[in-house]
Amino acid sequence: MTPAAPARGRFITLEGIEGVGKTTQLKRIVSALEARGVDVLVTREPGGTPTAERIRGLILEHGDEPMPASAEVLLVFAARALHVDNLIRPALEAGRWVVSDRFVDASHAYQGGGRGVPRAMIEALAGLALNGLVPDATVLLDAPVDVGLARADGRGDRDRIESETADFFERVRARYLELARDEPDRFVVIDAAQSAEAVGVAVESAVHDLLDRFNKTS
Amino acid sequence: MTPAAPARGRFITLEGIEGVGKTTQLKRIVSALEARGVDVLVTREPGGTPTAERIRGLILEHGDEPMPASAEVLLVFAARALHVDNLIRPALEAGRWVVSDRFVDASHAYQGGGRGVPRAMIEALAGLALNGLVPDATVLLDAPVDVGLARADGRGDRDRIESETADFFERVRARYLELARDEPDRFVVIDAAQSAEAVGVAVESAVHDLLDRFNKTS
Repeated sequence: MTPAAPARGRFITLEGIEGVGKTTQLKRIVSALEARGVDVLVTREPGGTPTAERIRGLILEHGDEPMPASAEVLLVFAARALHVDNLIRPALEAGRWVVSDRFVDASHAYQGGGRGVPRAMIEALAGLALNGLVPDATVLLDAPVDVGLARADGRGDRDRIESETADFFERVRARYLELARDEPDRFVVIDAAQSAEAVGVAVESAVHDLLDRFNKTS
Repeated sequence: MTPAAPARGRFITLEGIEGVGKTTQLKRIVSALEARGVDVLVTREPGGTPTAERIRGLILEHGDEPMPASAEVLLVFAARALHVDNLIRPALEAGRWVVSDRFVDASHAYQGGGRGVPRAMIEALAGLALNGLVPDATVLLDAPVDVGLARADGRGDRDRIESETADFFERVRARYLELARDEPDRFVVIDAAQSAEAVGVAVESAVHDLLDRFNKTS
């Protein structure tokens, strides 16, 4: 008898503007999953594979050459195509769970809301790059822009996108909230203006809900 | 009185598969233009600006990581968006002529014909990256694939795309010829299976025709 293929893993993404505490809460998501015996691969965007990380450098560095919004969104999706084909999909097929710090919703929010790339274009690029992959669940850490930027200010050097204006991040946040309203079954929105401890409790509770839901339906 | 803006320059592209003699004939195009007093900027794709040349490296090197067709076409258009916005368009607006070794038709031929990316997707990417820029004239050097590959064989190391199979280049050539049939006013197709000298005479004659045509219509 051929052994049964492992059940496909689940794909969880974490989203939010600068300063909402993604790095801290990513660790809590991973610990909460591992405490329940889940084998987790942690990754990030832009990046996640050697070539995609080199593309990340082109996207985020402060270069001498201007970067049109068109080139930025094309580079982000080129990195994502590599990330999906060479890392995320093989891990999911091997039965691992994948947790990514940002994914396609970040393009809707940053390149769409922030830079004004039309939604239909972002959807066309997603059709090309993702080969139908959709996150099973997306945790959106949401906080007012001034709260996020005040926290991010303490961190020193900002990359090219982190250096954008408050107006830019208002548009990014608004688009994230719009995406969450459009897909309430996929999104878990957490108020990230609370203390890190309170956010952490909410994040762990969300992870436990997801585990219960996925164990029932897988 | 404000001095009149210079007349917009003309944009000429050179296309063809490996081994058809693009490098040699590019020089003849430029000499023929300069002999008539035209100020020419010579450039190439993928590449042409510092960031686009770094993207060229990602596209053409033989890396350890597989490159899906989706990532390749997205990188090619990201480089092209930078090339158009930061080099080609400013030069044309300053009244210079631009001659590019490959441009958007190469994506139809290589990523479309060669890799199977749908034509509608390539047109959507062109809509995003080119901002309406179309070459004023395109010189296609055409030769049977075995002739081109036999010449290219003498050259030593081949990059990732040059290392493709004869079948791949048959599809690339067929798509180039299809594009030329679809737009006979823009394309000049030259038989590149002739001697380099005979091809050169045909190229110079084509350039003189273009100069006459553009001087009449500009």
